[in-house]
Amino acid sequence: MSATPAADGPVTAIVHAGGEHVLPLLERVEDLLREVAGGHGPVLAGHAGSTISAGGKRLRPLLVILAAGRDAGEGLVRAATAVELVHSATLVHDDVLDLAPRRRGRPTVFATAGREAATQTGDLLFAQAFTLLAANGDPEQVRALSDAGSALARGELLQRADAWDAAIALERYLQRCDLKTARLFQAACELGALEGGGGVGGAASLRDFGRRIGLAFQILDDVLDVAGPADRTGKHRGTDLLDGTVTLPFILARERDPELAALDPRAVRDPSTAEQVCDRIAATGALDEARAQALEHVAAAKAVVPAHLPERQRSALLMVADGVVARYS
Amino acid sequence: MSATPAADGPVTAIVHAGGEHVLPLLERVEDLLREVAGGHGPVLAGHAGSTISAGGKRLRPLLVILAAGRDAGEGLVRAATAVELVHSATLVHDDVLDLAPRRRGRPTVFATAGREAATQTGDLLFAQAFTLLAANGDPEQVRALSDAGSALARGELLQRADAWDAAIALERYLQRCDLKTARLFQAACELGALEGGGGVGGAASLRDFGRRIGLAFQILDDVLDVAGPADRTGKHRGTDLLDGTVTLPFILARERDPELAALDPRAVRDPSTAEQVCDRIAATGALDEARAQALEHVAAAKAVVPAHLPERQRSALLMVADGVVARYS
Repeated sequence: MSATPAADGPVTAIVHAGGEHVLPLLERVEDLLREVAGGHGPVLAGHAGSTISAGGKRLRPLLVILAAGRDAGEGLVRAATAVELVHSATLVHDDVLDLAPRRRGRPTVFATAGREAATQTGDLLFAQAFTLLAANGDPEQVRALSDAGSALARGELLQRADAWDAAIALERYLQRCDLKTARLFQAACELGALEGGGGVGGAASLRDFGRRIGLAFQILDDVLDVAGPADRTGKHRGTDLLDGTVTLPFILARERDPELAALDPRAVRDPSTAEQVCDRIAATGALDEARAQALEHVAAAKAVVPAHLPERQRSALLMVADGVVARYS
Repeated sequence: MSATPAADGPVTAIVHAGGEHVLPLLERVEDLLREVAGGHGPVLAGHAGSTISAGGKRLRPLLVILAAGRDAGEGLVRAATAVELVHSATLVHDDVLDLAPRRRGRPTVFATAGREAATQTGDLLFAQAFTLLAANGDPEQVRALSDAGSALARGELLQRADAWDAAIALERYLQRCDLKTARLFQAACELGALEGGGGVGGAASLRDFGRRIGLAFQILDDVLDVAGPADRTGKHRGTDLLDGTVTLPFILARERDPELAALDPRAVRDPSTAEQVCDRIAATGALDEARAQALEHVAAAKAVVPAHLPERQRSALLMVADGVVARYS
């Protein structure tokens, strides 16, 4: 039970707000995730199991369930699980590319099994997502998730193409956020709406909702990387800078501080220099402006939640939107 | 036009045998592959385009088309393209894991763009396959292709788990062949049969056909790696040995030659040693036995081609089966 989102305070409140069906559905998602990880022989079970059981907030499955607005049964569980599998596949591949030893406090698949096994594990989780989703018998759902999968890969490609380029345009940064984060949130909401029987109209509004909170989520992620506190995020401040990833706080701070504008990101080579740059970014007020931009996306997301939704569903979705920018990690 | 399979002698004969609709459909597959590669901005177009335009024999799309038995229109083109995209995605990831500089005589995505871009390019091609296939509106097709995608990843995982283990059992080797090669051939035939309107009964026979020729294909691949000639296969002999991949010729030869049975694959460190081991394997007669096993799978494949199929379709499928073991690379 410790891996279920219920252990987390704000998520518990959302789960409660969403209705009595939400927690049992999330638990069935956990069961199905475990089943998928364990169903391909011992080699995979070790790798995929460790990724999947490491948990995380299960925010995307929660969105699928809340967007459905009701207990739509096994199809909804499959959709929520499929979204989390695509997310997990991406994390596994990212950890290979980042040579990351740990994630969520546990060793990564890359660290325990090597880059080869980790690459294949990611591929497998990705393929499994579509096997699960195909069972729902709705080509629109497959299209939504595969589009998101394409977007994730394109977003990562762009991010790596943009690496170390301090002069990256704001539009380009937002495009990356959209591709690498927002589209999967969008797909989560669309899948939930489709499986919940909301029809194409309901799905369109909730798609928008998902995309907006995804943008807010990514922007806040980038703010937290600069702002810390490190003991809450579990990472040093400035890891993006050290990876050469230029994000909104730095983009905004460069407009305000000529010394930052002149900084070559390649010169930031160690954590203590990175923390100094983070302090300097914070001193410009760029973090407040970035947070304000995230909040604008949250407000826009809340504005598109259809008024005709059942009250519990509506309020749970609004809480998710607020929660995206209230989180610490 | 040079990238179309028509340039290849035996394939030309099969394309001709299959009927007048086959070549135009293969050309539409080429167009759609190019469209997918070009449709995601310049960053991707370079990577994916080079992978896709490098061509290859397009054997899997050909199987999809032949299994359909008729010009089933755009859905068939999408299915054939989706199968080739999954195949291409796997090749791109394999090249990253093998640090391979060239494939089919061209630089790999890994070599030109690095492991990060290549990993993401593979992910993108994989996701795109499902976007295309979803448009066919048939969940069975998505299930068939995602199952094959899972199998590919599991097969590669097993292969890497088994690396350098000379005492690997024959059953385990065959399981790997099935997962990493035969299942995608199976999916190709199933997709074609489904899209061609052959129904579940027709699809079941053709699935079997595909799986059997896939096994034969992989076994022959492994024979060619030992047998050469290198000027036809485009590779040194013994690359599998150098990678630590123990295949059928070595498994059979170890039963016949005590010195080979005592050989630690890790001792094979350079191409000239590998070629010597290849000669020694050949001297045991293991290559003939391995070829005979491949031919048994071909015969079994031919036996399951339904008698009621139109004569042209039947004879083209039989030619594909024979072609799988007649090829040089």
